[in-house]
Amino acid sequence: MIDEKGILFILSGPSGVGKGTVRKELFKRKTELKYSISITTREQRPGEVDGIDYFFKTNEEFESLIKQNKLLEHAKFVNNYYGTPREYVEKTLAEGYDVFLEIEVQGAMQVKHNFPEGVFIFLFPPSLEELKNRIVGRGTETEDLILNRLKEARNEIEMMDAYDYVVVNDDVDKAVNKIQSIIQSEHCKRERIAAQYKKILEDEL
Amino acid sequence: MIDEKGILFILSGPSGVGKGTVRKELFKRKTELKYSISITTREQRPGEVDGIDYFFKTNEEFESLIKQNKLLEHAKFVNNYYGTPREYVEKTLAEGYDVFLEIEVQGAMQVKHNFPEGVFIFLFPPSLEELKNRIVGRGTETEDLILNRLKEARNEIEMMDAYDYVVVNDDVDKAVNKIQSIIQSEHCKRERIAAQYKKILEDEL
Repeated sequence: MIDEKGILFILSGPSGVGKGTVRKELFKRKTELKYSISITTREQRPGEVDGIDYFFKTNEEFESLIKQNKLLEHAKFVNNYYGTPREYVEKTLAEGYDVFLEIEVQGAMQVKHNFPEGVFIFLFPPSLEELKNRIVGRGTETEDLILNRLKEARNEIEMMDAYDYVVVNDDVDKAVNKIQSIIQSEHCKRERIAAQYKKILEDEL
Repeated sequence: MIDEKGILFILSGPSGVGKGTVRKELFKRKTELKYSISITTREQRPGEVDGIDYFFKTNEEFESLIKQNKLLEHAKFVNNYYGTPREYVEKTLAEGYDVFLEIEVQGAMQVKHNFPEGVFIFLFPPSLEELKNRIVGRGTETEDLILNRLKEARNEIEMMDAYDYVVVNDDVDKAVNKIQSIIQSEHCKRERIAAQYKKILEDEL
């Protein structure tokens, strides 16, 4: 009935909180949601498709995108660049699809700066104890590394104030239900749609 | 996990839009939601229970409540007063229950003034044509009365700007789904819960 643009949703939170698991379960359920495809300079692996798994670019191309402010966020891991292309996101939103971005807290803050109209969801650990268990459970990290990660997690949680919503990840199904509710209710926000509804009314008078 | 207060939700919209039907279907599904009990000066009918169907008051008692600003809204129909008691709403919210109020647009504007922290949902007709059909379908109103009601409906729709959400009532099930999403996502709003989550974190440090 109304010609609605998509919304960019950003899921973030401290490392170890379970962002990836929640995102995968969400995508099992909501197929009309588009996952934001990243740009990377790392080598294309067998089976990976350009424009589906990643947009593959050279270092020079990537650095030129940074200079032109064509990335909503970017970071360098192990000498490779990773970033979120503004153009792909904006094109997909204009087509009426919601775009979903699952990202580390630092990257989310860059997106907030470059695309403040996004909807920012913070995934919160059920407890610090639980977060610690998950960080420890990942492998054979040393006690120092674990303490560092916990300190980082605490700092990341302090950044919660920049987010629109906080969802506690005590249970993946419940967390995904809440995120689906946030997606649906954001589409009912008066400031997004009132102008179009009023226009319908005027057209009918 | 966190000690959360309830939220007051107000459903309103032009007459004939189907507020009552949507509210009834919502209450069939969400039993933990509390319906706001009105105060009235009209006579108690057989089978009606004071404090369940209505709070029954005398004219003097009601007018004293108005003077003391103890009503979130009130109106007079056919010489009887009807109103929403602030005390009952606040007590129920403090107990952690959400309170749901289905009300005419004029009343909703009074609630907005007296309780701006409420969440205001505007139920929108699928089309003016449809709204007209519903108003006509109600009975044997004259053409003049119908035109008046439509004009009133248009004016009421102009008041949409005071609301937080707009839900189109093209289908009762879909409208109720959206309202349930709004209720759930409002409980995830960062400004409602971040302070408490941070406190949990500090307690665990």
